[in-house]
Amino acid sequence: MIIGDVMGSVWATRKDEKLNGLKLLIVKPIYNDDLASTFVAADLAGAGVGDTVLVTRGSSARSAFGKERLPIDSVIVGVVDSIDMIQNE
Amino acid sequence: MIIGDVMGSVWATRKDEKLNGLKLLIVKPIYNDDLASTFVAADLAGAGVGDTVLVTRGSSARSAFGKERLPIDSVIVGVVDSIDMIQNE
Amino acid sequence: MIIGDVMGSVWATRKDEKLNGLKLLIVKPIYNDDLASTFVAADLAGAGVGDTVLVTRGSSARSAFGKERLPIDSVIVGVVDSIDMIQNE
Amino acid sequence: MIIGDVMGSVWATRKDEKLNGLKLLIVKPIYNDDLASTFVAADLAGAGVGDTVLVTRGSSARSAFGKERLPIDSVIVGVVDSIDMIQNE
Amino acid sequence: MIIGDVMGSVWATRKDEKLNGLKLLIVKPIYNDDLASTFVAADLAGAGVGDTVLVTRGSSARSAFGKERLPIDSVIVGVVDSIDMIQNE
Repeated sequence: MIIGDVMGSVWATRKDEKLNGLKLLIVKPIYNDDLASTFVAADLAGAGVGDTVLVTRGSSARSAFGKERLPIDSVIVGVVDSIDMIQNE
Repeated sequence: MIIGDVMGSVWATRKDEKLNGLKLLIVKPIYNDDLASTFVAADLAGAGVGDTVLVTRGSSARSAFGKERLPIDSVIVGVVDSIDMIQNE
Repeated sequence: MIIGDVMGSVWATRKDEKLNGLKLLIVKPIYNDDLASTFVAADLAGAGVGDTVLVTRGSSARSAFGKERLPIDSVIVGVVDSIDMIQNE
Repeated sequence: MIIGDVMGSVWATRKDEKLNGLKLLIVKPIYNDDLASTFVAADLAGAGVGDTVLVTRGSSARSAFGKERLPIDSVIVGVVDSIDMIQNE
Repeated sequence: MIIGDVMGSVWATRKDEKLNGLKLLIVKPIYNDDLASTFVAADLAGAGVGDTVLVTRGSSARSAFGKERLPIDSVIVGVVDSIDMIQNE
């Protein structure tokens, strides 16, 4: 999983109907300032813009939902309360 | 998922017959100007060159189709209407 | 798999209930000094901050647990005792 | 999927017997000049050195074959005839 | 798949018991001199330090073994005899 910041949201009217009802948020990995690292994740934790979140990527993202056939490769599985890090040597 | 711009299309006469009938589009991630980041995605949203699209990658791409055995690792699942982003700090 | 150093831990109260009871640790790949390479892994080896660990990523991370539906994409599968490396030419 | 150029081939006598009979080709992504981006793909399209090919990667590569247990993570699924690209702005 | 050089081995006494009996080798992709690109692969081809090997990564690595539940994301599937490459233009 990675930790990221929710930067915004994306809207698509014309889309695979299996995505209907999902909130699609734009996430930037927390320690990466390159915009090219942003991606879109389906929200499963009630997250919003400004939240720091925990994101699961790849096929495991589908495991968060009850449906194997969902075309989702990233999902927000938690809202981060705190991070404890030792100093990087 | 990632957001990308449809840059073109690719044609292959000699190919795995399971790909027959699929429109294969070349996509560039929206915040990445390096051509090396482009890739090919099967279109499932009626997208065309110039559209900004939502793309699902990896095994989840197969989930968009009804067939588990499709040799597809990227699929366009939506055409993006708008993106709301907060300023990057 | 990759070898990494456990740098810290992350806490999320509001999260997918399938993650309850899992220890979530922040791991930095051992030969990568870029913080952007850090990620979060579920611990299955009793690891702690300061340990050098072996991490399995992707869908195989779920294989370490007995549940296919776990939204986990990285898991600590071992605590490293020693590394034997030839000189890099 | 990605578009790549077939640069060569690799031979391994001692190998997993499930790979027997597969032609293993070295592919370089078309818009990437770094040799570190080359990889090996099993050929399913009758491709050869000098061809520009379409490659499926990840678990979807196994979907091109009829066997789920094949230890293959990249497969050449087509030989590219032409690429139509708009000018990169 | 990728071609890599076996650089060493890693030992972990405290580990997921499903890894017992596997030889875990450190592999560096052949055309990548950055140590950050090294990773750990389970050996299935009788490889040793100094060998050039063929490695399958991702969920397909599990396909090399007879067990779907193995927490392995990289496996050495062959020992490379020779590589035929055209000159890179």
